[in-house]
Amino acid sequence: MTLERSNIAAMQGYAPGEQPQDPNTIKLNTNENPYPPSPEVAAALSGFDVASLRRYPNPVANEFRQVAADLHGLSLDNIIPTNGGDELLRLMLTTFVAEGEVVATTKPTYSLYPVLAAIQDATLREIDLDAEWKLPGDLIQQLREMKAKVFILVNPHAPTGSLVTSAVIAEIAENFDGLLVVDEAYIDFVDPALEHDCVPLLHRFDNLLILRTMSKGYSLAGLRFGYGLAAKNLAAPMLFKTRDSYNTDAISQRLAATALASQDYAKSTWDRVRQSREEVFAALNVLGLACLASQSNFLLCTIPDSIGAPRAYTMLKQEGILVRYFDQERLRDKLRISIGTKEENDRLIKALTTICKGNSSAR
Amino acid sequence: MTLERSNIAAMQGYAPGEQPQDPNTIKLNTNENPYPPSPEVAAALSGFDVASLRRYPNPVANEFRQVAADLHGLSLDNIIPTNGGDELLRLMLTTFVAEGEVVATTKPTYSLYPVLAAIQDATLREIDLDAEWKLPGDLIQQLREMKAKVFILVNPHAPTGSLVTSAVIAEIAENFDGLLVVDEAYIDFVDPALEHDCVPLLHRFDNLLILRTMSKGYSLAGLRFGYGLAAKNLAAPMLFKTRDSYNTDAISQRLAATALASQDYAKSTWDRVRQSREEVFAALNVLGLACLASQSNFLLCTIPDSIGAPRAYTMLKQEGILVRYFDQERLRDKLRISIGTKEENDRLIKALTTICKGNSSAR
Repeated sequence: MTLERSNIAAMQGYAPGEQPQDPNTIKLNTNENPYPPSPEVAAALSGFDVASLRRYPNPVANEFRQVAADLHGLSLDNIIPTNGGDELLRLMLTTFVAEGEVVATTKPTYSLYPVLAAIQDATLREIDLDAEWKLPGDLIQQLREMKAKVFILVNPHAPTGSLVTSAVIAEIAENFDGLLVVDEAYIDFVDPALEHDCVPLLHRFDNLLILRTMSKGYSLAGLRFGYGLAAKNLAAPMLFKTRDSYNTDAISQRLAATALASQDYAKSTWDRVRQSREEVFAALNVLGLACLASQSNFLLCTIPDSIGAPRAYTMLKQEGILVRYFDQERLRDKLRISIGTKEENDRLIKALTTICKGNSSAR
Repeated sequence: MTLERSNIAAMQGYAPGEQPQDPNTIKLNTNENPYPPSPEVAAALSGFDVASLRRYPNPVANEFRQVAADLHGLSLDNIIPTNGGDELLRLMLTTFVAEGEVVATTKPTYSLYPVLAAIQDATLREIDLDAEWKLPGDLIQQLREMKAKVFILVNPHAPTGSLVTSAVIAEIAENFDGLLVVDEAYIDFVDPALEHDCVPLLHRFDNLLILRTMSKGYSLAGLRFGYGLAAKNLAAPMLFKTRDSYNTDAISQRLAATALASQDYAKSTWDRVRQSREEVFAALNVLGLACLASQSNFLLCTIPDSIGAPRAYTMLKQEGILVRYFDQERLRDKLRISIGTKEENDRLIKALTTICKGNSSAR
């Protein structure tokens, strides 16, 4: 007997990046922060009263929401706490997209979006980025013609690391009739000199939902905590209707609030990641492995055909270094490499140097 | 601009029970376990390596699933780990119920089910319990006539605490074409002398999904961890397609696995709750507040019209004692009271004694 909905029976699930057990493996495949959470988070964990766990948590994570509201200059009504950023995406689709409605995103993009659209039985439409991986000039027109209910844009972009300016985001929000979701999972790694900030746009647009996560910038991928930022009316149904009634737990709420309040520590990790990113970028270019300039904590680098990206992936894996290969159009000659600690990056460059040399001497 | 789906715009959200800040309040309103989690859980929490949080957790909580599989005599494929039992219910609807399909449940029942059905834009059908709060004799026929895709049965029942035998569960599973969901949130409080056990039915029926939670029996409501038990084919789409890719966090996985392995400690708390339940039951009856016999960790007691349930609720609240009142058909003359510690129960009985005496002297 098959009881699944037909769309569920027909779809494929999301494939998470590998999580190796071997502690010596260098994990540059899922864009985790290479540095541990802040010392304050460690203190909050060891000070947590286990007896309090017998009671239900605050349903809407008020302690966390207050910290987030203060940080972003917003109010509690604008903060939607979620069990990882992924939950916000699912919640957004549940709340705003009925069966058959159109969910638009770019191609390529974060590979979870099509999976979530399939679960909701929505119609997925992918908008090709241009030759320079930028949004097409007729984006708004395309969104209108396809009658998109939602447009999901990951910014900085995955897997290229490129950044769309807040002026362009504002233009989309202003001219698009549907809901604009900006997934800022990697926002913390943007160069502060750019003064990029989309949060003020929330005061102007009630069709804008910004996604933030504690997984990358705050070194808490294992904790599952993210949040949405939106105008009050947009946030309300997710906060008070469609969210699982107790979607975040008491320990996560406390640790996430503590981490978000530890801004100085978090920023110090972002600085180190950015510095390493430029070093790895330069070293890869020296090796002839061209990278796109990235505002994120990963680099998308092109592997020469003479080596081949799948082969480079396998050779790195044999050296105990995991990176990400996407078997997708425009990405089959590329690897996405997360920025690690200095030691991890050095081992990566050394391994790639050997692979490139082996290749040139074999010719 | 309203962007919500029409069913979301039309619905009301779930109202969680009150969570008072005052530590002196006696909280007998949300069926939490009055005893703390096991000492092993405290040890697991203090031994947790905070640095490991920078990495993603195991996507399917394999450590927890192994403990659960061993406990229930099942395999990993039969265990669906979720962010609280509530997530399993939502996941079940997402996976098996399309817009407009029929979700059946009893009336009354756990008040979350109608909310989740509304979110999924399913058609909710409520089947009246008989005068003795038992399932109607023509249940199967009713389910067939209403073309139910899913039937959700909370067992022991909420808010009455009555238990449907495993023989009846088997009969429903055998004769119902849809999915039978048995919500066993309160199963741990059933008298062991009854030898009630529905888990073996999973070997016979591939349309049976059993819900378990760590919130009540394991004193971990604050942790948000539950799980489903089902035949492999029924579990697979929830495990590998519709579940948020990392739905449970690393700390919760470790603590839930530890708590589930601490069977002796957990059973000691269930024994104490059962003993207190019988004491409170007897004391309420002496006061003229008739209770239904309960196999759960709460009692549904009838308040005489001369006092009135809403008024008794308010008077208890003024004494710092929270219980649950449901403004629903057949429940407006009743209060649902969770079993607390001996001291909490004594204060409850004392307060109710005063309320009853004040009432009789006022006449």
